[in-house]
Amino acid sequence: MGKEITIYDIASQLQLSPATVSRALNNHPAINEKTKVLINAKAEELGYRSNKFASNLRKQKTNTIGVIVPRLNSYIMSTVIAGMEKVANDEGFNLIISQSLESQRKEIANTKTMFNSRVDGLLVSVAFDTDSFEHFQPFLKKKIPLIFFDRIFENSDCPNIVIDNAKGGYEATKHLIEQGFKNIIHITGNLKRNVYSDRLKGYQQALSESGILFKSENVWVTALSLEAGKEVAHRIKALPIKPDALFVSSDLCAVSCIATLKDLDITVPNDIAVVGFNNDPVSQVISPKLTTIHYPAKEMGEMAVKSMINHLKGNFNLDATNTITLRSELIVRESSLFLTHS
Amino acid sequence: MGKEITIYDIASQLQLSPATVSRALNNHPAINEKTKVLINAKAEELGYRSNKFASNLRKQKTNTIGVIVPRLNSYIMSTVIAGMEKVANDEGFNLIISQSLESQRKEIANTKTMFNSRVDGLLVSVAFDTDSFEHFQPFLKKKIPLIFFDRIFENSDCPNIVIDNAKGGYEATKHLIEQGFKNIIHITGNLKRNVYSDRLKGYQQALSESGILFKSENVWVTALSLEAGKEVAHRIKALPIKPDALFVSSDLCAVSCIATLKDLDITVPNDIAVVGFNNDPVSQVISPKLTTIHYPAKEMGEMAVKSMINHLKGNFNLDATNTITLRSELIVRESSLFLTHS
Repeated sequence: MGKEITIYDIASQLQLSPATVSRALNNHPAINEKTKVLINAKAEELGYRSNKFASNLRKQKTNTIGVIVPRLNSYIMSTVIAGMEKVANDEGFNLIISQSLESQRKEIANTKTMFNSRVDGLLVSVAFDTDSFEHFQPFLKKKIPLIFFDRIFENSDCPNIVIDNAKGGYEATKHLIEQGFKNIIHITGNLKRNVYSDRLKGYQQALSESGILFKSENVWVTALSLEAGKEVAHRIKALPIKPDALFVSSDLCAVSCIATLKDLDITVPNDIAVVGFNNDPVSQVISPKLTTIHYPAKEMGEMAVKSMINHLKGNFNLDATNTITLRSELIVRESSLFLTHS
Repeated sequence: MGKEITIYDIASQLQLSPATVSRALNNHPAINEKTKVLINAKAEELGYRSNKFASNLRKQKTNTIGVIVPRLNSYIMSTVIAGMEKVANDEGFNLIISQSLESQRKEIANTKTMFNSRVDGLLVSVAFDTDSFEHFQPFLKKKIPLIFFDRIFENSDCPNIVIDNAKGGYEATKHLIEQGFKNIIHITGNLKRNVYSDRLKGYQQALSESGILFKSENVWVTALSLEAGKEVAHRIKALPIKPDALFVSSDLCAVSCIATLKDLDITVPNDIAVVGFNNDPVSQVISPKLTTIHYPAKEMGEMAVKSMINHLKGNFNLDATNTITLRSELIVRESSLFLTHS
């Protein structure tokens, strides 16, 4: 790497004082426009890099926000991150991004890296199997703001950004019941995580309101993956008494299940109705089109970074907030409609 | 933010010398294990952050790699980034990630941020409309390594990581011709970009080898989005003479087109055969399952970061390489098979 260009180099080449150069680069009103243009052009020509880095070291700030998510390549998480990047970029912050790959062990390693990278704040959606809050304590001790989103710690004092998962689960199930379905299997993920346990609560509430007995054997915990969808279909095929509907906590898993059911001569919605979750684009392109709960992923990412930056700038005290809940909504399509068998 | 803990604080609390503390934290062999454990425990208790940040400033290194992609929330890009993060994390590097949103103007702003953030290297996949290389010059001038991946600049001297797009386009088209289809429309993206222009070359070569006349009106340039797929279907519905096959440069666009064709009473593959590109999970869950070209996105991300880190460590000279080409492959499924009309 070449020698770092300083304001002194620019000053000496233009025969100006370093103070003038420094003021011009910081757009100080005392310097006239013509001089600013001249100095900025020379700075660019020489490859000068603003000394934000050194100045951040003095201010103990890095203008970076750390993000830890379970997986970068899921529809919801990549959309959340797209929303985060947009706001961060507009506000002059960088995002440092890492993934736990659904493992607490890797999540712990990620938090250490973020801590040592001196992020100004940290945004986290926790892994499937995270049990302990311990690895987040160093941030709290150092008063580095920490926000959880999507998959949160309910009993921490940290602010959370979520959708109303219980309401989502309730609306999905209620809709199926209103269509006349009674034997509804719920396909979900690790129930340690609020997103899945809350949706289950909503499912139970809808059943209970309609006088349908809740059976724990109707809750199937899976990885909610493409493969899990296939396995669910085969498991249903083998059941002596088949369910009349499925409420699946992920669209990708739901559509994979529908495709496999079709291969096994079980058609949706005629034989079994299906409701998914997320409003992943995949829900619109399969046949039958999938009824689902719209998840405002981009808005969640934007809200998380906006809240963090407002807190860092002192405009908004995060600690006073406990939970921000974003609106989700049921989108009815063909996969859940009761069709009279002709 | 609390006062920053230094090695002097740890040393004074343990009544050890700062030199011993420093050596222990750097895992120096001269310090015995018991002392190391003691010092590391105290460092953690006090919330000590390694001084990599200050030491990086002295070394003019940040241990960060910048990544600019067109969109974070596309299947290919989120998978590439998942691969990048995995390798970077294993090697102790951070990724700073930004998106151009397919605009050269935003891409230019992103490169400035990356430059001022002092990334050690930059990985870029360019926007739809990027014309100029100018905004990358400051990196070359400063000898900051720059690698393009997926969407590259063919005439720059920078290393490129790509798949053989011409081969992909050729195999997709050849397969359709072998199935007996002759009037094949190619749905593609902005032809400024190598990925699309190269696939078009492959399409043309396959036609030419089979003695089928290439017609430019059979190449439809679109945004390759979900919406574009719907528009293509309506445009086909309106054609007096319909094509017998489509080769679409994105699976998501292809499946959206197939779903809309179905709504318009045109069935795939009976009326029109379709081949996509990417092997997006969506290709496996629709009916008929989509024939496509597998794109090794995770491997591309891993390769990009591995090459960058090897170059930064001096293990491998990037400048000697011009292009790394990863293997792609045709995956035949139902959407492209010739069915005799019964």
